[in-house]
Amino acid sequence: MSEHKKIAVFGGGSWATAIVKMLTENLDTVGWYMRNEQAIEHIKKNFHNPKYLRSAELKASQLDLSSDINKMITNYDVLIFAIPSAFLTQELEKATISLTNKIVFSAIKGIVPETGLIVGEHFHQEYNIPFQNIGVITGPCHAEEVAMERLSYLTVACQNEQNAKDMAKALESWYINVKTSDDIIGTEYAAMLKNIYAIAAGIAHGLGYGDNFQSVLMSNAIREMKRFIKKVHKMKRNINNSAYLGDLLVTGYSTFSRNRQFGNMIGKGYTVKSAQIEMSMIAEGYYATKSAYKIQQEKGGKTPIIQAVYNILYDDKDPKKEFKKLTVKLD
Amino acid sequence: MSEHKKIAVFGGGSWATAIVKMLTENLDTVGWYMRNEQAIEHIKKNFHNPKYLRSAELKASQLDLSSDINKMITNYDVLIFAIPSAFLTQELEKATISLTNKIVFSAIKGIVPETGLIVGEHFHQEYNIPFQNIGVITGPCHAEEVAMERLSYLTVACQNEQNAKDMAKALESWYINVKTSDDIIGTEYAAMLKNIYAIAAGIAHGLGYGDNFQSVLMSNAIREMKRFIKKVHKMKRNINNSAYLGDLLVTGYSTFSRNRQFGNMIGKGYTVKSAQIEMSMIAEGYYATKSAYKIQQEKGGKTPIIQAVYNILYDDKDPKKEFKKLTVKLD
Repeated sequence: MSEHKKIAVFGGGSWATAIVKMLTENLDTVGWYMRNEQAIEHIKKNFHNPKYLRSAELKASQLDLSSDINKMITNYDVLIFAIPSAFLTQELEKATISLTNKIVFSAIKGIVPETGLIVGEHFHQEYNIPFQNIGVITGPCHAEEVAMERLSYLTVACQNEQNAKDMAKALESWYINVKTSDDIIGTEYAAMLKNIYAIAAGIAHGLGYGDNFQSVLMSNAIREMKRFIKKVHKMKRNINNSAYLGDLLVTGYSTFSRNRQFGNMIGKGYTVKSAQIEMSMIAEGYYATKSAYKIQQEKGGKTPIIQAVYNILYDDKDPKKEFKKLTVKLD
Repeated sequence: MSEHKKIAVFGGGSWATAIVKMLTENLDTVGWYMRNEQAIEHIKKNFHNPKYLRSAELKASQLDLSSDINKMITNYDVLIFAIPSAFLTQELEKATISLTNKIVFSAIKGIVPETGLIVGEHFHQEYNIPFQNIGVITGPCHAEEVAMERLSYLTVACQNEQNAKDMAKALESWYINVKTSDDIIGTEYAAMLKNIYAIAAGIAHGLGYGDNFQSVLMSNAIREMKRFIKKVHKMKRNINNSAYLGDLLVTGYSTFSRNRQFGNMIGKGYTVKSAQIEMSMIAEGYYATKSAYKIQQEKGGKTPIIQAVYNILYDDKDPKKEFKKLTVKLD
């Protein structure tokens, strides 16, 4: 990836909008695919996304907006996907152009439900993209604070160091610091697992546990995350780096996190179905839980928090009793 | 220390009150020294501390309350000190009875200003108490949640395993889980350092930094804490255990933390002096900062957060500029 490669963002949500905003600080032209044509027209006229991250002012003259996914894949070299994992497959089914020679970055935090894979592995397996050309863009980063231009730190991970550095350069600005990493598997799993722990934090809150317990839960969560990721992809990594611990904290301690809200409703007595209907969406951690549970079953290891969340979400266990059992496993 | 040794708590504040409450769940008699005689009378009559942690209902019939420190030292074998570090020396000056043969537990989070030592080292050096008979009781634990009987986890550290186990047993109940450790130096330094990081979190908040930055700050703080403690006392420890990371999080993310409030005022433009007057007290992290800075100067190592807080509190540096400089050192 050279600096002259053209970059496009795929997705119309908050995080996609935040990434577009960051890129326009550096690039003359940023491609932006979204399926909603009315939103495109609105952005061109009003300089902000009508539905998501409305507070972010966008430099519309630098944007190459289109709802034609094939045109965007053809015209761009580096594709950043920021589509919720639950909708990734249906969006990519529209693509008739091969992705094999593209550089693909995932800014998706979750598991692709159809394959049960993290996004990087999904692109590698389903679209024959070599790992050298697959990267991850990860937080800790609420899109809302990017809109407000509040100092935020990202991690860009890619096995190909130059690809990581080029993407870092494209994203960096006075309010964005970017660190590079070669741990694409670990950073993606961290981004996925943290949503499960945010659900756990929400359940605990909903059940009436306090701040003392939350800090113990998070302290156990980061140790569990370390063990889990080590089983999946063993390499030297500091789990307390921002991409792992920071990302866990910004989500686990955020009352805005949808995963935490979802957990909170479960803790307060909503059924999984009614919480999902009430939120009119499915929290990404819901899929992540099933997938992490399956991986844990295969690879082994002690993951009591994932186990408790799985039992509650998929095995209809009583949250109060499950958490009571969990508390004696934490320390 | 056997189970039959008699335990007394020294101190009249929130944390002392919380520890007394925990002990009365298990022990028939708990000694409780506090200097304020009116408070003692109030507790005997009304079953709660009039000034601190009023919401905690106390089993007054199990309490042996006294304002005579010498009587209490004489009558008890195990002394738990929960007096703010700034007042420890003046309280102990009243004691004419030797402490040498006592088992002393510190529930104090901070540095003794007169000696610049953590409390365990202070008792060892100033009162000739062997390290085997010195222990630490540490969080993560807001006293307020103990009053509400919300599930909380403590760590009791002592080089003498039996002393640690006996104290754990005395504190444990249906809402208190206790873990033991042999790392008295590390847990005490963690409890002290977290107050500096809470000040840093407060300054950042006061300056307008958001949640994204806070998570990066905490992620850097735990790595800095690990390096610092390793320099002071090298041993095998998992810095992500509750006594270290959990304690950092419960303080750093708490808006009730006095250290965080102090930092917040500094970030908003108060001088150190005016923030201290406004709060009518000196946050423990203020002394901790000076002491940690001195230790860092002697031992070396990279501690940019402590350095920044020191520069602001003791070297009259502008918080905005110091944090600007700090942000490029974090990742």
